[in-house]
Amino acid sequence: MSPIRPILALLTLASALTLHADDGYRLWLRYDPVADAARRAAYAGTISEIVIPESAPPVVASARDELVTGFRGLLGVEVPVVAQATRDNAVILATPRDPWIAAIISEADLREAGVEGYILRRIAHEGGHRTLIVANRPQGLLYGAFALLRHLQLGQPLEKLNLVSAPKIQRRLLNHWDDMNRHVERGYAGFSLWEWFYLPEIRSPRYRDYARALASLGLNGTVITNVNANAQILTAPYLAKVAALAQEFRPWGVRIYLTARFSAPIEIGGLKTADPLDPAVAAWWQDKVAEIYRAIPDFGGFLVKANSEGQPGPQDYKRTHADGANLLADALQPYNGIVMWRAFVYSPENNEDRVKQAVTEFGPLDGKFRQNVIVQIKNGPLDFMPREPFSPLFCAMPNTRLAAELQITQEYLGQSIDLAFLAPMWREVLDADTYANGKGTTIASVVDGSAKLQHPSVIAGVANTGTDRNWTGHLLAQANWYAFGRLAWDHQLASEKIADEWTRLTFGHDETVVSTINKMLLGSRETVVNYSMPLGLTHIMAEGHHYGPGPWVDLKGAGRPDWTSVYYHKAAADGIGFDRTATGSNALAQYAPEWQKLWGNLETCPENLLLWFHRVPWDHKMKSGRPLWDELCLRYQQGVDEVRALRRDWDSLKDRLDAERFTHVAQRLARQEKEAIHWRDACLLYFQQFSKRPLPAGVEPAAQPLEHYTSQILRNMPGHR
Amino acid sequence: MSPIRPILALLTLASALTLHADDGYRLWLRYDPVADAARRAAYAGTISEIVIPESAPPVVASARDELVTGFRGLLGVEVPVVAQATRDNAVILATPRDPWIAAIISEADLREAGVEGYILRRIAHEGGHRTLIVANRPQGLLYGAFALLRHLQLGQPLEKLNLVSAPKIQRRLLNHWDDMNRHVERGYAGFSLWEWFYLPEIRSPRYRDYARALASLGLNGTVITNVNANAQILTAPYLAKVAALAQEFRPWGVRIYLTARFSAPIEIGGLKTADPLDPAVAAWWQDKVAEIYRAIPDFGGFLVKANSEGQPGPQDYKRTHADGANLLADALQPYNGIVMWRAFVYSPENNEDRVKQAVTEFGPLDGKFRQNVIVQIKNGPLDFMPREPFSPLFCAMPNTRLAAELQITQEYLGQSIDLAFLAPMWREVLDADTYANGKGTTIASVVDGSAKLQHPSVIAGVANTGTDRNWTGHLLAQANWYAFGRLAWDHQLASEKIADEWTRLTFGHDETVVSTINKMLLGSRETVVNYSMPLGLTHIMAEGHHYGPGPWVDLKGAGRPDWTSVYYHKAAADGIGFDRTATGSNALAQYAPEWQKLWGNLETCPENLLLWFHRVPWDHKMKSGRPLWDELCLRYQQGVDEVRALRRDWDSLKDRLDAERFTHVAQRLARQEKEAIHWRDACLLYFQQFSKRPLPAGVEPAAQPLEHYTSQILRNMPGHR
Repeated sequence: MSPIRPILALLTLASALTLHADDGYRLWLRYDPVADAARRAAYAGTISEIVIPESAPPVVASARDELVTGFRGLLGVEVPVVAQATRDNAVILATPRDPWIAAIISEADLREAGVEGYILRRIAHEGGHRTLIVANRPQGLLYGAFALLRHLQLGQPLEKLNLVSAPKIQRRLLNHWDDMNRHVERGYAGFSLWEWFYLPEIRSPRYRDYARALASLGLNGTVITNVNANAQILTAPYLAKVAALAQEFRPWGVRIYLTARFSAPIEIGGLKTADPLDPAVAAWWQDKVAEIYRAIPDFGGFLVKANSEGQPGPQDYKRTHADGANLLADALQPYNGIVMWRAFVYSPENNEDRVKQAVTEFGPLDGKFRQNVIVQIKNGPLDFMPREPFSPLFCAMPNTRLAAELQITQEYLGQSIDLAFLAPMWREVLDADTYANGKGTTIASVVDGSAKLQHPSVIAGVANTGTDRNWTGHLLAQANWYAFGRLAWDHQLASEKIADEWTRLTFGHDETVVSTINKMLLGSRETVVNYSMPLGLTHIMAEGHHYGPGPWVDLKGAGRPDWTSVYYHKAAADGIGFDRTATGSNALAQYAPEWQKLWGNLETCPENLLLWFHRVPWDHKMKSGRPLWDELCLRYQQGVDEVRALRRDWDSLKDRLDAERFTHVAQRLARQEKEAIHWRDACLLYFQQFSKRPLPAGVEPAAQPLEHYTSQILRNMPGHR
Repeated sequence: MSPIRPILALLTLASALTLHADDGYRLWLRYDPVADAARRAAYAGTISEIVIPESAPPVVASARDELVTGFRGLLGVEVPVVAQATRDNAVILATPRDPWIAAIISEADLREAGVEGYILRRIAHEGGHRTLIVANRPQGLLYGAFALLRHLQLGQPLEKLNLVSAPKIQRRLLNHWDDMNRHVERGYAGFSLWEWFYLPEIRSPRYRDYARALASLGLNGTVITNVNANAQILTAPYLAKVAALAQEFRPWGVRIYLTARFSAPIEIGGLKTADPLDPAVAAWWQDKVAEIYRAIPDFGGFLVKANSEGQPGPQDYKRTHADGANLLADALQPYNGIVMWRAFVYSPENNEDRVKQAVTEFGPLDGKFRQNVIVQIKNGPLDFMPREPFSPLFCAMPNTRLAAELQITQEYLGQSIDLAFLAPMWREVLDADTYANGKGTTIASVVDGSAKLQHPSVIAGVANTGTDRNWTGHLLAQANWYAFGRLAWDHQLASEKIADEWTRLTFGHDETVVSTINKMLLGSRETVVNYSMPLGLTHIMAEGHHYGPGPWVDLKGAGRPDWTSVYYHKAAADGIGFDRTATGSNALAQYAPEWQKLWGNLETCPENLLLWFHRVPWDHKMKSGRPLWDELCLRYQQGVDEVRALRRDWDSLKDRLDAERFTHVAQRLARQEKEAIHWRDACLLYFQQFSKRPLPAGVEPAAQPLEHYTSQILRNMPGHR
């Protein structure tokens, strides 16, 4: 132990000296010295060397480097790397190719670990001990190394370490809506990380750090271009740049995927058509895919947004989404590439309730997609609102592979100003029971393939990353990236556990800090719902940039009916809300009978979805006994009050946090309060025109008349073209 | 001395531990421990405490904090701050209000220090010593503190410290061509630092760090918006944001200036005209300026680009530039605000040689501008080319205040790919003799006001900063920011001295490192000239984004004749070059007779301006004895060879530099070689069509036919809309 101490002391002090300037760059991989001296000594005493085969593939070399870095930081020791164990307390990375593994690790455990999982185990050995990281494949060793380091960071005991962990979903991807000019659509953390002009020669150190962050969560792929796609990415000069990125990501087991613009054969291929049934088009895609795989042998596949919001697609040629997806799937199939075909379609020419259109369009295509096509579905039927019911498309395509698309970037939840920890929202989705194969057919089981025994399985999160130094704009929004990654690996994890992990990894183990931040995180999404779109209200934000309130947005303000707010809230003198029962659009009919029964009845429908499914008079008596109008007003006020509580909670930590991170969050919470008040005042003044009722006691009146709010124009908004 | 050592040891080691990841963020203010132990001890032994009045204004508090931070880093000591000297070796910040100053500092020295300068002096005192930082005003104390720290960083002895330094130019400004959507026109280091949407509540730590960097160089102001202006910046919501930035900059003595869009009275004021002679327009500007000064009491003034490249201006109302400038000057005058009115005007409807038009337009207005108007002139008459003669406008307005506008961002010198240290280019300009008041009337003396005894004096540098972690994209381009700041303070400084300072501040005192990097820097601009626009060629770059070669750009490729390349090089079968002598456009006549004589004669004209002033046959015999064509080819080849030498030089430092910075520069130099070859091949193939001559021996032939180069389209280029 003695050689450890000097370095440790140094690091501790060096870290203390820089405590005032923590810019958040290190994410959850801080590896600051373990603060509890006894625990640090215990760890250091049980880790003597890292044993790793000499000819380790790059992914295992990354595992090795990560362990060396992690042990150096956490324990203040330079742990040597050796090819064969030479002493007690070795940490050994091994696969079943190591002959002695069979004697220690059961076949069942190895089976459970699967292709990407790992086994962590501390074993007795020749009177001493060893710590094993075992996996069937190199990738599992890397994930095991990160898991071991997380175990230490979380202060958990090494002695009885014994766990097997494997991802439940095969392709765990970020989706970047990054344009090639470095603008990020719905990006609120600066600009795109991909410096296209400088590639392939010039490679930002962030490429490596980004891939490492993905690997630390078990994410194994990334779609680096916007679904509103640019065909240029598929040209030779850009593929050389993509290949350079792939080279940077590969040692971390992160595969690249691209978005494919359906009209690429015309735009960059010189063809006259992109008709999916035209043999020349098929040949063009086959050649293009072959070219891609020559440059990027582990290329993952394509993500496609077609015939949606102006994007080209197979319907331009009177073909179906299946025709379009299968065209690309056939080209990718020889290389085991996949197509993720988005189901986010709705049309301004279609009078059908927008939330019904995906099922209407895709339902009939069930069973017509190739086996390497996955239909990618947003969690709700509308568009990443603060709260929606789950998308009924998850139960409308029993013979099709279905992926869930979650949005990490907070397009409709305050972007990078507001605190909104999204794990509780995603849990609502993953736990939702589709009843597709009878009770218990959760969305999670549909997505992981277990409900239908269909693979490949895919989960995608629309990234909240950018060039901002802390990656996510709002420091606490790092928790959403973390939560998505952890849920993609294990969709059973509780929100509380994820929050607690992230807080400890990011802020350490001061229990006051941990409990305060955990509480802040866990209630934060509901707070945003309260001051923006409570009681099942939806899509009443400002047009275009989607920031702040815009319940007044009508056809004068938006280009098409289904982009207005009045389409969704339908406020009038007689009430508010969208009747989606049998007396209205009957979107309810797209759900299982159990849901129809619960949601269809005004009395049993949960109040948090009330105005989504029902049109309700202003004087409707709510569970609280109050009329709807009063309840609505009080929810908005509650949202504001909760933001004030968030500010008080954060301020209470002032002396326990470094100044830079404290100030960063405090400034954002101050702005959030202003924005919450703005939402409350704008919405209540607007709706009051129809309700003609006074604000109930306890609700603060607006400082300005309605016109003040409706006349505001925000310009040059981040994430909006 | 003993309490110093432990912290120092710590810092040294901590610094060593992080040697592998230096991201360049700290610029020239690294404050790493002084590597030479004897020198460090000597310094530490002569600095015991910092003496500063208790009620110091914010600028002096910044000086104090900087000294504490600097001493901690450089010497590893926590130097206490006290209100009265308590011991030997105090560092005392003082102004003439301290009564004892008169006994030590002469009136003459105080006069020399002036409003912003400082006196640094080590004096004997009561058997011991003191180090004095003396200035007439707080700002000078801040500059003095930075100067003392630079003195230590450069390893110079403290013992005989005795210097007086004062800036020669009063307003030393950066000009940011930052759009409000965070795009930076001609910005190659990421995006705009100003996060408009998040202001005023949310304030990036970079605001402070930016202002601190400016102050460290003696820069005292910044124009934060693009000369291609957006009137929205002058609206109330944005002025509140600007005021927040001003608050962040103020403790560093950095004042904010804005660009004023001439049509703002119409666009945001609701007026029907922006006619400068309309009383309602004058009243609007007076009210607007009053509003600005209420929000920002130390606001500096306006920078205006009018009737230039599509910007609105007084000529839209048949008024003159003087009418326009005086309108704003009158509004600003009560607050001592200034107007910087750009002379960068030229018109596609005007057939006159573009480089003559500024004199034609502005010359007759001499003497018609208010005393708080400064006409701001780019160094050359064209547009920041790799080499131009100086602008003749500097000698065409004897009764007008004139400012020099230099471009730090490398729009035409390889942007942030190519290494081009610009101090030698700026020296050419500053040292150029206009002969306006007889021999020795240098541009520097015109700009600093001494030639004409006119003030205020202004120098402006178009910034190369952005959100990139290292601020300037190319790490070595930090040297250009540094050089501009140092020259703005003291336009007599030699390029060699500036390079040496910057290299030592940035890379330390390893003499091999220092001499190698100094050499690389000092030759680098000429290298870019050689492979892009040698022998006085100019404006032959690609259209629009201005990156890479485009000698073929003609009216099919550019919107107006004066944006083509063929307008400038005029290559044809009989020769190449633009005749600007009396037989041609006679632009030469705008210069003093001395220059006319030198430049007008084909035999005496320096070859580096040959094709700027003369049309020359391909077989013209050059000083080398070679025909022009061969000389041209060899210059291009020489440029390529010099880039290869740069690469070799840099590679020789591999073991002496941290890996991150080494790799960063190495990757850029590799790309630069590719680009240099591209320039050479594209230009020689293109010109060869006219010369019909073979490449001389020693020039590598192009790998591709001309069509390969002319058909390239670069998309989504940084810094270009």
